[in-house]
Amino acid sequence: MEDNCIFCKIAKGDIPSSTIYEDENFRAILDLGPASKGHALILPKKHAENLFELPDELAGKAMVLAKKLAKQLQDGLHADGVNVVQNNGQAAGQTVFHFHMHLIPRYNGDTVNVAWTPGTLTEEDKKEILALF
Amino acid sequence: MEDNCIFCKIAKGDIPSSTIYEDENFRAILDLGPASKGHALILPKKHAENLFELPDELAGKAMVLAKKLAKQLQDGLHADGVNVVQNNGQAAGQTVFHFHMHLIPRYNGDTVNVAWTPGTLTEEDKKEILALF
Repeated sequence: MEDNCIFCKIAKGDIPSSTIYEDENFRAILDLGPASKGHALILPKKHAENLFELPDELAGKAMVLAKKLAKQLQDGLHADGVNVVQNNGQAAGQTVFHFHMHLIPRYNGDTVNVAWTPGTLTEEDKKEILALF
Repeated sequence: MEDNCIFCKIAKGDIPSSTIYEDENFRAILDLGPASKGHALILPKKHAENLFELPDELAGKAMVLAKKLAKQLQDGLHADGVNVVQNNGQAAGQTVFHFHMHLIPRYNGDTVNVAWTPGTLTEEDKKEILALF
């Protein structure tokens, strides 16, 4: 547990939350500032700042849990879709530096904006990026 | 393979792509309409419309692969963060109905908008949602 990490405290139950799921590795809670009705967060109990710090085993389990909970949210709330979003780094919009996955139920005609403007894959960028792999 | 599924064809190599990774289960490619430099997609080779249709084993492996490739993209491109986004359903912005994960490298000061306006978790919603679990 990291000192002063609010998600550590919530994940371990030291700070109360609206918990929708808990097991030995994770707690899932309702987001207090939801993008939409049913917006939930999956938090590992063990501190990891982001996806890169999360052990592979937990990263895999987190996605399987996302699948399960997203389905329950979609079915239970009669939502029309779900965004699964996981941000790493302040530049990516991460505001709490304890790994979390957002499950955002979506409803036809809602005003949630999880989208982007498509650019163009230039030949120059393509060459540069492919050379990294 | 689903007829007329463009991501099936790309994943299997029947349509050429800028591939950054391939194994028996997945192909990862550069997005042709990137939100940012390095925007990549992870595609399972076996068709699944969305996360709900993807077998748990592959869902877990997809996230482990996302971790690996997001790190390589971030380090290689000197990005400041990465969004991992996975959309399910047209209402959630899904446009190709073959499961895929977006890896979107982020750069300080970029104009990519993967964000939302926080609402409020009302007592009424909270009660209704918690009753589903």
